[in-house]
Amino acid sequence: MYLSKLFIPITKDLPTDAKIKSHQLMLRTGMIKQSSAGIYSWLPLGFKVMKKIEQIVREEQNFIGAQEMLMPTIQSSEIWKESGRYDDYGEEMLRIKDRQGREMLYGPTNEELITDVFRSSIKSYKSLPQLLYHIQWKFRDEIRPRFGVMRCKEFYMKDAYSFDLTDEEAKKSYNKMFYSYLKTFHRLGLKAIPMAADTGPIGGDLSHEFVILAETGESHIYADKKIFELDLKHYQLNDTSLQKMREDFTGIYAVTDEKYEKKEFDKNVKKENQMITKGIEVGHIFYFSDKYSKPMNCLIDDKDGKKTSVKMGSYGIGVSRLVGATIEANYNNNVMVWPKSISPFDVTILPSISKNNKENLEKAEKIYKELKKQNIDVLLDDVDENMSNKFKKHDLIGIPYQIIIGSKSEGDSFEFKELNSKSEILSLDKIKSKLKT
Amino acid sequence: MYLSKLFIPITKDLPTDAKIKSHQLMLRTGMIKQSSAGIYSWLPLGFKVMKKIEQIVREEQNFIGAQEMLMPTIQSSEIWKESGRYDDYGEEMLRIKDRQGREMLYGPTNEELITDVFRSSIKSYKSLPQLLYHIQWKFRDEIRPRFGVMRCKEFYMKDAYSFDLTDEEAKKSYNKMFYSYLKTFHRLGLKAIPMAADTGPIGGDLSHEFVILAETGESHIYADKKIFELDLKHYQLNDTSLQKMREDFTGIYAVTDEKYEKKEFDKNVKKENQMITKGIEVGHIFYFSDKYSKPMNCLIDDKDGKKTSVKMGSYGIGVSRLVGATIEANYNNNVMVWPKSISPFDVTILPSISKNNKENLEKAEKIYKELKKQNIDVLLDDVDENMSNKFKKHDLIGIPYQIIIGSKSEGDSFEFKELNSKSEILSLDKIKSKLKT
Repeated sequence: MYLSKLFIPITKDLPTDAKIKSHQLMLRTGMIKQSSAGIYSWLPLGFKVMKKIEQIVREEQNFIGAQEMLMPTIQSSEIWKESGRYDDYGEEMLRIKDRQGREMLYGPTNEELITDVFRSSIKSYKSLPQLLYHIQWKFRDEIRPRFGVMRCKEFYMKDAYSFDLTDEEAKKSYNKMFYSYLKTFHRLGLKAIPMAADTGPIGGDLSHEFVILAETGESHIYADKKIFELDLKHYQLNDTSLQKMREDFTGIYAVTDEKYEKKEFDKNVKKENQMITKGIEVGHIFYFSDKYSKPMNCLIDDKDGKKTSVKMGSYGIGVSRLVGATIEANYNNNVMVWPKSISPFDVTILPSISKNNKENLEKAEKIYKELKKQNIDVLLDDVDENMSNKFKKHDLIGIPYQIIIGSKSEGDSFEFKELNSKSEILSLDKIKSKLKT
Repeated sequence: MYLSKLFIPITKDLPTDAKIKSHQLMLRTGMIKQSSAGIYSWLPLGFKVMKKIEQIVREEQNFIGAQEMLMPTIQSSEIWKESGRYDDYGEEMLRIKDRQGREMLYGPTNEELITDVFRSSIKSYKSLPQLLYHIQWKFRDEIRPRFGVMRCKEFYMKDAYSFDLTDEEAKKSYNKMFYSYLKTFHRLGLKAIPMAADTGPIGGDLSHEFVILAETGESHIYADKKIFELDLKHYQLNDTSLQKMREDFTGIYAVTDEKYEKKEFDKNVKKENQMITKGIEVGHIFYFSDKYSKPMNCLIDDKDGKKTSVKMGSYGIGVSRLVGATIEANYNNNVMVWPKSISPFDVTILPSISKNNKENLEKAEKIYKELKKQNIDVLLDDVDENMSNKFKKHDLIGIPYQIIIGSKSEGDSFEFKELNSKSEILSLDKIKSKLKT
């Protein structure tokens, strides 16, 4: 893509309510545009990042055997009355009357709807376990939306649901998701800590939230640094190994302010290992057994032909929120660097262009074509602007690699720079192989 | 995927309102499940097909240089008041009040919202032309939703928008989309005929709808068979060639009942070339110049620094509707065959299984692993059921190729069948190479 053709409305004008780094950066680099309070359009740059995050989430869901499907955004109130949550949910639920006066709503979460799908589909223990997920827009009518995509009204979320015959089996599904979440965040370049959590309006008695470290996070966290020494590579996708994994991770002290007690912290964590910082919740998993299946009459025949309520859990990752959260975790001193796995482009080419000399631009175009042939997704900054402005702009756009075509390039060698590092002069072949690793 | 693990609630019970083939088939094979009137969940089988269609649509939009973005589902009424359509749109628009009493709506189409995004982003003719698209859920509060996903309330649609300085330039964008649509439907295995169309509530004076042939279609079509002799391969992605393409296609008589006149038909089409049949609309493109940009004050500086309203067109493809439409075009005599490009799986393996003999199942599992290694997406029917039931079931599921492991398989050779054709005995290597072409 040529920058001059990319729909990327870069701006310096920021609204006064853009208070956190991610919100500011996403508006400045034209990743998003607010369409009304707490509701955003995703412009090409932001959209590309969100789609890459979505794809990683999807791959890691598929890896543990979860099946993708898609539930609609608009739900009938009937099923929420069955579960008993319709009145409880409060004003955050966007309630709608259709033209025939039926009470509908924009789904804020999908426990009821998936239970309704399941109860009419699966009748026997033989078809269990089942793990289903979808990635869909949700809506919460926040009274005070803020922080850009971090606390907005319409948001993109992966939510998964597990169905098992017994509590014991269900915990195996829970462990699989626990593992999938850790792998997902790792691939996104994020350090996520699982923490025992309250269950809130979802319910149940077992729950973990996954929190990434970011100074601008909304929750305080207290944790033992040892948690970063655990390595997912030591665990495999089988029940025994995953049970050990969960015990290993949850055996290390890590809580948010909700559950923090100084005494416990000091007792459990050596002084030099105590980490007190802030974090952002990016995922939350729940096991709530028959909380929905019982009132909604979602029954399964067990081995003896006896009907029993299916045991369920639910598992959420905020996909659109992760775009903002990743920025909070990676943006520093006016320089943003996207993790390679989700960068909107793999590399950017920055030719020094002057009115009378198009030679650098022509070189850049040649390299552009070469890289495209190798399936490298490259952005060419063909805008006629001085280099110092270009660098400032690309410090914000955050593509991790730059090829700079200026006075330092010589023959087939060019200046190659990894953001936040020193540049080096490399041949095009060396650059290609660096980009492909 | 093993069929026993796939979430595929096959059923024989059909609701009485499932009147057309696609609606019946999608319910029978568990592709969708209705969640409320005109609103469906997409279960894994249906979801896979829809995603494949979406991806082909996306690739062909990208090919002509359109950029993907994403607008939200919930819009403010303000912009619809600016364009003047808020009151006109009628009861099909799902109108919503948020908790603060603001008038919102679930977008049935996005001309207003994209104009709003554009006017605050692009100011100069230098950034034109622009082609933007998104693939997003839309809502129309149909008074009488029917025909399953063909006329439902919540539907998935690709809508694109073009922005140009002049009417003349805008027609070039229109031609690009015209080309992209023909290519898209061709890749989906559909014969689509472009027809001059009325513009309805979108507006403008230039419009074509793309109609595919299907006996159960809702519109009558009258066309010259010669249109099928035109071959897209003869045109290239440049303005001159695309202008000729549009002239060639639209120069051949093809209309729906709206515009049909017997006299004209007889005058323009030789008797033996007259085709009178039914069709389904799967795409619609519009050029409406400044219909939205003028009232919404979406201005561009032209070459002389004078401000002028940007010239716009819009271009829709019904992605969820195409799942149903493809079935209508391909389902015959209780046999469905998916076009290879969008089949939910590439091939299915059908071992003949009996209680005392698992040999065939073991062979099937071996082949399954082999094919997976080659990135062939394979479904293994491991259900303990007699072969005649299996065949009936798979006639409906519609995966175009079958590998049958029964009495006819011998050593490394197996029965290989293309649906609707005779089977042959082939070595696994031959089967692999057939599946990879």
